[in-house]
Amino acid sequence: MTEQRNTALRTALAYHQAWTSKDLDRAMSYIAQGIVCDAPAGRIDGAVAYREFMTPFVEILLDAKLIAAFGDEETAVVVYDTATVPVPSAPAAECVTVQNGKITYSRFIFDRAPFQAARQQPSESASSDA
Amino acid sequence: MTEQRNTALRTALAYHQAWTSKDLDRAMSYIAQGIVCDAPAGRIDGAVAYREFMTPFVEILLDAKLIAAFGDEETAVVVYDTATVPVPSAPAAECVTVQNGKITYSRFIFDRAPFQAARQQPSESASSDA
Repeated sequence: MTEQRNTALRTALAYHQAWTSKDLDRAMSYIAQGIVCDAPAGRIDGAVAYREFMTPFVEILLDAKLIAAFGDEETAVVVYDTATVPVPSAPAAECVTVQNGKITYSRFIFDRAPFQAARQQPSESASSDA
Repeated sequence: MTEQRNTALRTALAYHQAWTSKDLDRAMSYIAQGIVCDAPAGRIDGAVAYREFMTPFVEILLDAKLIAAFGDEETAVVVYDTATVPVPSAPAAECVTVQNGKITYSRFIFDRAPFQAARQQPSESASSDA
């Protein structure tokens, strides 16, 4: 496998490793200023808005486990599971476009339903998941 | 790229092509009898239950567009967008394990929120998305 072959995957994994380590500054170093992210709640335009979108999620993140990661020169897909304060298992997939080592586009897929349900039952959010 | 390299991807794409063509019989020919699928609403065990899970979704499917697909010998990830009667855009990701040409495990990720919202507003389900 040549170095060029998995350029996008290397960037996507470096980004993933950074934000799942709660290092948002390092994570943002892999995000293009003009990033466009299509997330479940709608489109996010630009790095400032993207960081605002990621910040509260990183704050509630307890653990992340990589499930699969593939990529080629300019596209990568990273699938992972997250444990967060309100939701014990919230798998997600990110399909990203990478140009010059920065993520310029992200299609972000996860299920909002358990987060919405947890918000409607705030008293359970800090208890065990039993 | 050798034939063996993308065995899982070939099966995942053949399955994808079949169900998005609403050919559930052909789609099920790529599903192992003992499939385990971790879907947003919980675990689905076995081909009979899996077909029951897919049937109503295929019935409301209007269109599907492949976004990305990658794989190796035994794992593949397929990312796509769907248009359905209640929800005009519902992207999803499937991360599958393939053994002997059949999908034995599927991690299925999509956002249930717009489907739940549509169910709460049944009068809008057949109107335009304006």
